[in-house]
Amino acid sequence: DFLFKGLNQPGNTANQLGSKVTPVFVTQLPGLNTLGISLARIDFAPYGLIPPHTHPRASEILVVIQGTLAVGFVASNNPDNKLFTKVLNEGDVFVFPQGLIHFQLNIGNKNAVSISGLSSQNPGVITIANAVFGSKPPISPYILEKAFQLDQKTVEILQAKFWTNNS
Amino acid sequence: DFLFKGLNQPGNTANQLGSKVTPVFVTQLPGLNTLGISLARIDFAPYGLIPPHTHPRASEILVVIQGTLAVGFVASNNPDNKLFTKVLNEGDVFVFPQGLIHFQLNIGNKNAVSISGLSSQNPGVITIANAVFGSKPPISPYILEKAFQLDQKTVEILQAKFWTNNS
Amino acid sequence: DFLFKGLNQPGNTANQLGSKVTPVFVTQLPGLNTLGISLARIDFAPYGLIPPHTHPRASEILVVIQGTLAVGFVASNNPDNKLFTKVLNEGDVFVFPQGLIHFQLNIGNKNAVSISGLSSQNPGVITIANAVFGSKPPISPYILEKAFQLDQKTVEILQAKFWTNNS
Amino acid sequence: DFLFKGLNQPGNTANQLGSKVTPVFVTQLPGLNTLGISLARIDFAPYGLIPPHTHPRASEILVVIQGTLAVGFVASNNPDNKLFTKVLNEGDVFVFPQGLIHFQLNIGNKNAVSISGLSSQNPGVITIANAVFGSKPPISPYILEKAFQLDQKTVEILQAKFWTNNS
Amino acid sequence: DFLFKGLNQPGNTANQLGSKVTPVFVTQLPGLNTLGISLARIDFAPYGLIPPHTHPRASEILVVIQGTLAVGFVASNNPDNKLFTKVLNEGDVFVFPQGLIHFQLNIGNKNAVSISGLSSQNPGVITIANAVFGSKPPISPYILEKAFQLDQKTVEILQAKFWTNNS
Amino acid sequence: DFLFKGLNQPGNTANQLGSKVTPVFVTQLPGLNTLGISLARIDFAPYGLIPPHTHPRASEILVVIQGTLAVGFVASNNPDNKLFTKVLNEGDVFVFPQGLIHFQLNIGNKNAVSISGLSSQNPGVITIANAVFGSKPPISPYILEKAFQLDQKTVEILQAKFWTNNS
Repeated sequence: DFLFKGLNQPGNTANQLGSKVTPVFVTQLPGLNTLGISLARIDFAPYGLIPPHTHPRASEILVVIQGTLAVGFVASNNPDNKLFTKVLNEGDVFVFPQGLIHFQLNIGNKNAVSISGLSSQNPGVITIANAVFGSKPPISPYILEKAFQLDQKTVEILQAKFWTNNS
Repeated sequence: DFLFKGLNQPGNTANQLGSKVTPVFVTQLPGLNTLGISLARIDFAPYGLIPPHTHPRASEILVVIQGTLAVGFVASNNPDNKLFTKVLNEGDVFVFPQGLIHFQLNIGNKNAVSISGLSSQNPGVITIANAVFGSKPPISPYILEKAFQLDQKTVEILQAKFWTNNS
Repeated sequence: DFLFKGLNQPGNTANQLGSKVTPVFVTQLPGLNTLGISLARIDFAPYGLIPPHTHPRASEILVVIQGTLAVGFVASNNPDNKLFTKVLNEGDVFVFPQGLIHFQLNIGNKNAVSISGLSSQNPGVITIANAVFGSKPPISPYILEKAFQLDQKTVEILQAKFWTNNS
Repeated sequence: DFLFKGLNQPGNTANQLGSKVTPVFVTQLPGLNTLGISLARIDFAPYGLIPPHTHPRASEILVVIQGTLAVGFVASNNPDNKLFTKVLNEGDVFVFPQGLIHFQLNIGNKNAVSISGLSSQNPGVITIANAVFGSKPPISPYILEKAFQLDQKTVEILQAKFWTNNS
Repeated sequence: DFLFKGLNQPGNTANQLGSKVTPVFVTQLPGLNTLGISLARIDFAPYGLIPPHTHPRASEILVVIQGTLAVGFVASNNPDNKLFTKVLNEGDVFVFPQGLIHFQLNIGNKNAVSISGLSSQNPGVITIANAVFGSKPPISPYILEKAFQLDQKTVEILQAKFWTNNS
Repeated sequence: DFLFKGLNQPGNTANQLGSKVTPVFVTQLPGLNTLGISLARIDFAPYGLIPPHTHPRASEILVVIQGTLAVGFVASNNPDNKLFTKVLNEGDVFVFPQGLIHFQLNIGNKNAVSISGLSSQNPGVITIANAVFGSKPPISPYILEKAFQLDQKTVEILQAKFWTNNS
């Protein structure tokens, strides 16, 4: 119950986003129950992206194992959705506070790998685009048109797309 | 320090979204410090919308004081961004779990009003569209194109728009 | 599990206290489980009273929806059971810190209504008079005489009374 | 900062209640800060009483060092203000859950002593009678008459009394 | 469920260490569940010792009921494993912060007794020597030789010894 | 405040233990404040050891980046100081619950590297041997002789040794 094997295996990045999260949460490693901690590996193809997402129940600390990432998070409405962003090289560590929208992009032409610690055994992942445009059933288009200042057709196109769940 | 006045005043909904949040968080009411609770009033013009947003540090319980709202929240990626939605009439109460994306829409042709309790004195509000397309400075368009499956021009248009902060 | 209906219905205030609490706690709304939040509506007949009480597991934030209330809470023994009290009109918001004795009185000659948020899905309510004089079985009269500086007869009379549980 | 001296000294029980609490809270022992624990000694003269009180921020576990105590706590309104009571002899241990009204009475004709652990460095003590009838300034008599089903004169008499703070 | 009897009974100190802990944790007193508090009595024969140990999930506050104890705790590696130590007489109270290694020694030629409060219903006890040299199965001797700068023979001797669990 | 650089640099393992911890705790990365998460890199020379230690305020999840480790933790006295141990290869993940004594040993003849997430921004590290035999000032030898069943001379020798703080 305290052992999980295989985090050295690269995740399959052959998807639209060119990235793959391999979570080691309580679902994958039952011994984490009540311990308030978990881990994840992220693989990035060249220019692969972990798109804007949140963890509803955890803060995250990430270290770059290989490659060069551009990472960032956006503060809440107050103050003013300020974006904090950095380019991270191998060995750089960055923090994403609980619940804030953040992203990680491989800006190199080689694969990249990172490891993250998360402050919950069950942090959750909400990929913004998937939750907004790919929910099941779909959110009413009227809401998305108004919320995102998009025309009806664009919303319909977006809602008809396939949204990769790479986590 | 324990008193805040004026939550009976309708918020000004004369904005793009036709809605206005009046928060009573620790910033507005210092006596809330350490107490783990806060309140907010929401005003909706006819068809006014509180667009998809999250509270990074709080769950929310909402009661409709006046009007008819369509509300919903989206579960995290696992399981599969499931949308939970309900139509709420006066006196109906609904729950939005911590950190999940949720929205409230006035589906009536009259003003609507709701009151929410939040499980933190400093819950935070992240309006998804504002954080994604209206951050300061902007998120790299490349990231948003790839994340939201939008073309470059649409992203540029979106990033040039004015994003109402009505909270 | 996330919906509760009917909080627009006035509670029945035809009781000794002229007041009625309608709780929306985890018992009434199972979806609140683990979310750390709940809600309550209070109805007041003219001069109706929510008598001194505590919530053993929650702080409370109250907003007056209609009418005029005199509210207050008493600090702990140190410092010196200080009373904090305010008259609240429609739209005024007040805070009651966790576990402190507090009360709400309608000081107008019309019905009043308030809504409260509480920082637990299971806040509990302890009406002081009921717990002290109306417990089942009764507390030994000797204890109450000594504690409240009452004579035996008064305590017996009090313990024989009916104590309204309006929460 | 980690040492407090003198808890072997009997508290002075020469007061109306025949009891005295000696707290070792963070105020008395600064090293307790952030540690979530504190201690108290209680001395009882023959038939001395710690009157009904609550700790707004802590549960309590009590052990009788000397003598025989009748102790009890009252559950919240639901279910029905049930009283749990026991006679404790030397070496007996009893629990008082957080925020519930409880009391301890020496039912022997000799002094009694107990020691309690409390689950906060700053548990607070609210002696019910003191907070209700001895607050500063006083609670409006109308409220107390209605809440406690007492006549105006009795309330006035009670509010004019001296309420021992023996904690 | 809220009552435990017999903490006035001296624990049997006829063991190698000359001491005995009598815990009143949730295992012994089920009513402690979720309450975040527990208690323990310690008995010391003359020169009896509670050897270096930790509580992985609780801080401890100890009061000397009888006798004279030398107590201490060691801070973490940073800053520099500083030892805080005091001689405690009857009525002295001392604090051991969560998770730090601490010990209590009867430095008098008479029995001693103390009572401790602990900030968890399930604090756990890890006696360092037992966990290090008496685990089941044993830790690899190579690890202990290197960690404790002991030769192989000494480690083997230690691992073959009987380690009293007096808690 | 959210960036720490250099975790790709191998720690200097030229010490008695053949290992080095590089912490990224709140001291090294101030942006971790209040976030409940931190990270550490461990470098192992061949047969290098992180000796038995605890984190008083955190659970730990470790992933092997390179090499082969033997790891283990010891449960508390009840039940019976049971040892849980595993051999970990590259990509294996293991959990060490809060406050329990644990160790990591490189059992290969090449360098090894691991990364750990910890469930606190300020987890603390207590190396058992250092705290027990290398505290400043030293713990009374009498206590250590009795606790560890060592003769006086061995304790004196141990207390005179240099105890590497490699964390």
